[in-house]
Formats: sequence, structure tokens, C-alpha cells
Amino acid sequence: MSTTLMGQTTNTLDSRVKTLELTCDGVRMLDQTRIPHDVQYLTYTTPQAVAQAIQTMVVRGAPAIGIAGAFGMVLSTRLHLAENSTWEALFSAIHQDAEILRESRPTAVNLAWAIDRMLNVLATYQPLEDSPQTRTDLLEAFTTLAQSILDDDVRGNQKMGQYGATLIPKGGKILTHCNAGALATGGYGTALGVVRSAFAQDPTVSVYADETRPRLQGARLTTWELIEDGIPVTLLTDGMSGSLMRAGKVDLVIVGADRIAANGDVANKIGTYNLALVAKAHNVPFYVAAPLSTLDLSTLTGEDIPIEEREASEIYEMNGETLCPVEQTRYYNPAFDVTPAPLVAAIITEAGIARPPYRESLPQLFRQAQP
Amino acid sequence: MSTTLMGQTTNTLDSRVKTLELTCDGVRMLDQTRIPHDVQYLTYTTPQAVAQAIQTMVVRGAPAIGIAGAFGMVLSTRLHLAENSTWEALFSAIHQDAEILRESRPTAVNLAWAIDRMLNVLATYQPLEDSPQTRTDLLEAFTTLAQSILDDDVRGNQKMGQYGATLIPKGGKILTHCNAGALATGGYGTALGVVRSAFAQDPTVSVYADETRPRLQGARLTTWELIEDGIPVTLLTDGMSGSLMRAGKVDLVIVGADRIAANGDVANKIGTYNLALVAKAHNVPFYVAAPLSTLDLSTLTGEDIPIEEREASEIYEMNGETLCPVEQTRYYNPAFDVTPAPLVAAIITEAGIARPPYRESLPQLFRQAQP
Repeated sequence: MSTTLMGQTTNTLDSRVKTLELTCDGVRMLDQTRIPHDVQYLTYTTPQAVAQAIQTMVVRGAPAIGIAGAFGMVLSTRLHLAENSTWEALFSAIHQDAEILRESRPTAVNLAWAIDRMLNVLATYQPLEDSPQTRTDLLEAFTTLAQSILDDDVRGNQKMGQYGATLIPKGGKILTHCNAGALATGGYGTALGVVRSAFAQDPTVSVYADETRPRLQGARLTTWELIEDGIPVTLLTDGMSGSLMRAGKVDLVIVGADRIAANGDVANKIGTYNLALVAKAHNVPFYVAAPLSTLDLSTLTGEDIPIEEREASEIYEMNGETLCPVEQTRYYNPAFDVTPAPLVAAIITEAGIARPPYRESLPQLFRQAQP
Repeated sequence: MSTTLMGQTTNTLDSRVKTLELTCDGVRMLDQTRIPHDVQYLTYTTPQAVAQAIQTMVVRGAPAIGIAGAFGMVLSTRLHLAENSTWEALFSAIHQDAEILRESRPTAVNLAWAIDRMLNVLATYQPLEDSPQTRTDLLEAFTTLAQSILDDDVRGNQKMGQYGATLIPKGGKILTHCNAGALATGGYGTALGVVRSAFAQDPTVSVYADETRPRLQGARLTTWELIEDGIPVTLLTDGMSGSLMRAGKVDLVIVGADRIAANGDVANKIGTYNLALVAKAHNVPFYVAAPLSTLDLSTLTGEDIPIEEREASEIYEMNGETLCPVEQTRYYNPAFDVTPAPLVAAIITEAGIARPPYRESLPQLFRQAQP
């Protein structure tokens, strides 16, 4: 990895899909709202624009928005340094931008986690004396940390993939929901990272993808990125998983997560909870793959996880056409749901696999992962 | 009801939505593929065209396609009588048309049931001597029977509604899947007929509608017809029912059925089985409302019900735009699934409410309903 003063970095870890990267010009991101039709990259030059991109889901997926948040913090620092703000004003402005980024989406804890890591570094500079050298050091430290959040994510996903692959039987048929792949992360994937690792060892592994209404991340993103890697994928609507399992066609379910509470309750894309209930009824193991940055031990149970409600138009509009009598209909559109821990057979992380009881196994993984 | 020689009939039972009717010109049907955007009626003049309308879902819903099948049989008789076929050729031609209609959709038993009723009447004419009077009588008998299948359906739905309304608590919040309403029947509805009856007695009753992918009958049809009747309706995607129930917002689920086996297993629109599992996990009662013509006591269990697989384009295309990489993706698109009897709290029919064990209660209702 090379890092220059201006934040020019390249991700040298191999990944076919480049979800997002920090460049001299800003944060360059694959516009995920246009996949699979256009593979188009957009460069965002301010932290406000990055927050907007997170909100409108140009970039989405808990780990990816964490990385985007860190990159947004680098942009903030670059901009305020370029404005030659006073030392005090600089810190205040970066803190303001941090809150804008933090609030762009409430459920995934990785965003807050990444921003807090950046703020912790920032805090070590505030007591220092202002000088050109200190300013240079601050920007370099910020850039290095943000880039390492991305690199660690990819490396962590690869380790997670190796652990997770041990759970996949020969020729395993894996059902997944939403997109927890390269597009949701720094470039390898959590749930789909496990699929990639398993497929590398056994090319008879295959995937079933829930389309994942309302935003169709399964149909649009998961099919696309698996096909890019040559992994067979069958698309179904979210209501078909029971029929599929009853026909004996699913060996296991793996999904990602946006936040995991201390007791093992898992917030993930809406529809995950239904899928977990359906899996339970068929004795199909339901696994969650997520980095430790998704664990929020300060949140005791799923009840305490804030669930984002998104615009009703996500439900009533499709490709610019309305599906129902828009004005008179009411809508229910939570972006996430909570799957209670008893439905989760195991949580796959980069530090190993946690099994119930999660109140014990999750903190243990955390401790092991400390350097 | 008035019936003329040429089959001009009017349905005098009150219903705000006229799903289908037999006219002098043919079978006039509301084009359900265009709801909610256009309320457009199409007249089909041959049994082949009616079969095509059933297949492409211009008309859908088990009871409605049964009625359409009976009307198609009337068209067949009209046409072959007009051609002045020989007596023998007439019967052979009507039988051929009957099979085309019967095979237009395989899962809903009401279609075969209605066609068999028509064929039973036809069989009573075959031994008679050919004469203008016999031909006139045959056409009139056919028209009368087909029209009575529609009228009985509406009356049956209203009775079903009265029985079903006794199951709805004050201010009940009812979740439904697909469209089992006026649009799926002769004009009142099965599941939504129960809602209508309950709402007439208690205007604080309200409905949650699963959008019902892939064809979005919940979003397009159920919202539309409930709004026409002033009944409050909230739309959600199919994966949101668990989140909704966990929030305590659902008192009961009611759905329709396409075929009910002798043991109480219920074939209904894909996604129903997932919903039943989710309801079970929350102790929310799951009811099925269906006329006796949907019961198929000759089918012993749900395993024996043929499930229609429909075109993949229903999944990968929306409003003319594709959602995924079409060529490389595989698809799973069963139109129906089977909900096992143990998940069904009661089956509401026009002859009363059946409770488990259904092997006993269903035949009993059948016997009671015999005139």
C-alpha cells in the first residue's frame, strides 16, 4: 500500500469489485444504485456529499459505510486544512462533519465505530502545538487510519471466509438475503466472502439469492457480483424461501449484519427475521457473518438497536412507475429487522466462530482479537 | 337476475367492483394487469381467448377463474351452435374447448370444478334427440348454470364474510397476502369478503397488505379495492411481516386459497407458507377463507397438489426494466406454495368454519352444504 501526503492510496489487496477508494480527488465509489445496468464510479469531494451518498445508498452495507465514513473524515480534514482554519476551528469543523456522517444512517454500528476511531486519533492531536508539521502529521495519520480500516476489512473478510467455509458442506446450497458481499464491504464480503472461500475450495457450491424488497439488493447486487466471480446463483422472491426449503433445496442460510447486540440479537436488512424463522422451521442452520466492528457490546439486546424507517416511495415506486394508489395507501417501511439470538446457529467473524451462548462467546472473541 | 336466450345477463348482487360478466358479446372482464393505473374492461369472444386471459392473469384468483372457465364454456357452446355443427361434432368441440380452459392454469381447483359442473350438464343433453328446441335448451341451461356459479360465489362470499367476521376482534388489525378480494371472485371476496363484513360492523378494523411478489397483487389489487371501499390499508413488502408482528401490530392473518386438500393443507399464492410460519412464531392466528369449491377432497395432502411454475421474467423484469443480469442468473418461480394444515387455525367457508382436525371437519361441512 502506498500513501502520499494528499491521500493518494491504492488498495493492493486483490478484489474484482472496487466498492470504494480514497483518491487525491476525493472518495471514489461505485454507484450501487445503477448496478447491474451501469458500472459507474462517482467521486465525492466533501464529507457532506459522502453523507448524502450513504443516505441515498450509492454506497451501502454496514462495513462499506463504515469505510466511507472514515474516508469522509479524511476529506473533512483535507478541506479544513486547505482553508487554513485556526487550530481550534479545525477541530470543531471536523467534529461537526463527523456528526453529519454519523447521522447519515442510524442502524449499522460500523459507521459510528469508524468515525469514533478517527475521532480518537484526532483527539491525540488536539493538545499538540499547531505547526505545519503537526498539520501534515494529522492528515497523514488520518489517511493511514482510514485506509487501514479498508485494508483490515478486506483482510478480515478473507479470514472470516476461511472460518466460515468450514461450515459449508460439499456441494452446499447456500441461501442469502440482501447483499453482504464485496459491494457491502471493502471488497471481499462477509456472507458472500464465506461463499467465495467455500467456492474456491469446492466449485460445486451454489447460491440462492432472495431478491430483497424493497430495494432489491439481492436481485441487483448479489446476482451481479456472484456472476462476476463465476459462482452459480438462482434468484427468488423473498416469499419463496419456505417453498424452497420444504423442497429440500437449501443446506444453510448465511447473511450479513448491520449491528449485533451483546446477547447475539442481529439487526440486518428487513426480511432477515422472516428468513430466520423459516430456516428454523426447516432445521436449516442460519449463520451470520460479520466483522467484530459490527458487534456492539454496549447494546444489550436487539430491542435497543435503532431501526431506520425509510421513505415510502421505496415501496410504492419501481423504475419510476407507481405500484398502488399512492396517496390513499399507508406504508410500513423499516429498513432493518432484528433476528433474536436463539434463531442464530453461529456468528462468523474474522477472529473465529461464536456459538451460543453469545453473551459469553462474543466478548471472548473480542478479547482474543485485541493485539 | 335476468337471462335471455343469447346469454345476456346482469349480476344484480351489489358489488362495487365488477370483476367479470357474461354479455351478449362474450365474457367481459376487468383487465387486472392494468390495475391500479387503468380501469379497463376487455371482452373475450372465444373460449381460447378466455383461456389466454386466465393464463396471462387478466383474470386471476381461484373463484374468479372458475367463473371465467364456466363463461368460456358458454362461449364455446354459443360458437359451435352458431356454426350449426352436427350434434356429435358439437359435443366433441365443447369437450375440446373444456380441456383448453381446464389446462390454462393447473393449481386452482375451482377452474376444473366449474368446468366439470358444466360438463355434467352437457352430458344430460348428449342422449337427447337433436332439435332446435334441444339446442336452445342446452344453451339456456349452460348460461343459467354459468351465471349461477357467479351468483352463488357472491352469495357464498357474503355468508363466508358473516362467519369470518365473528373471528375478528374489535378494531382488529388484519394482515393479508395476495388478493383474495372482489377481484379474485365473483365480486365480494373471500379473505377480503371477511374484511368487508367485519368493517361493515366495525369501522375501526384495518388491513395490512403484503405486496406479494413477484406479481404484486397485494400492492396493485388489494390496496386498490380496499381503498375503493374506504377500508384503511397499509402496504408492506413480503419480508416485513415478522417485524410487524414482533411489534404487536397484527391480530390475525387471513388469506384465500387455490386448493385445499382433504387433510387441510392449503395451496395459495407463493409467500403464504412463509407468512403462516411467521404468524405461528408470534401466536397470531392464521385463517384461510375459501368457498367449498376450493376444497378438493380427492387430493389427500398438499404434496399431491400440482404447483404451477411461471415464467422467470416475472422475477427479473419490472415495468419493462430488468433487475439483474438476466442471461447468467437462474430463477425459481413457483406461483404457489403449500401451507401445512397444522399452521391453519381455521378454514372459513360459506357453510361455516372448519377447525382442526380438518379430515373430519371439512367433509362434514361438505355434507351440510348439500341441498
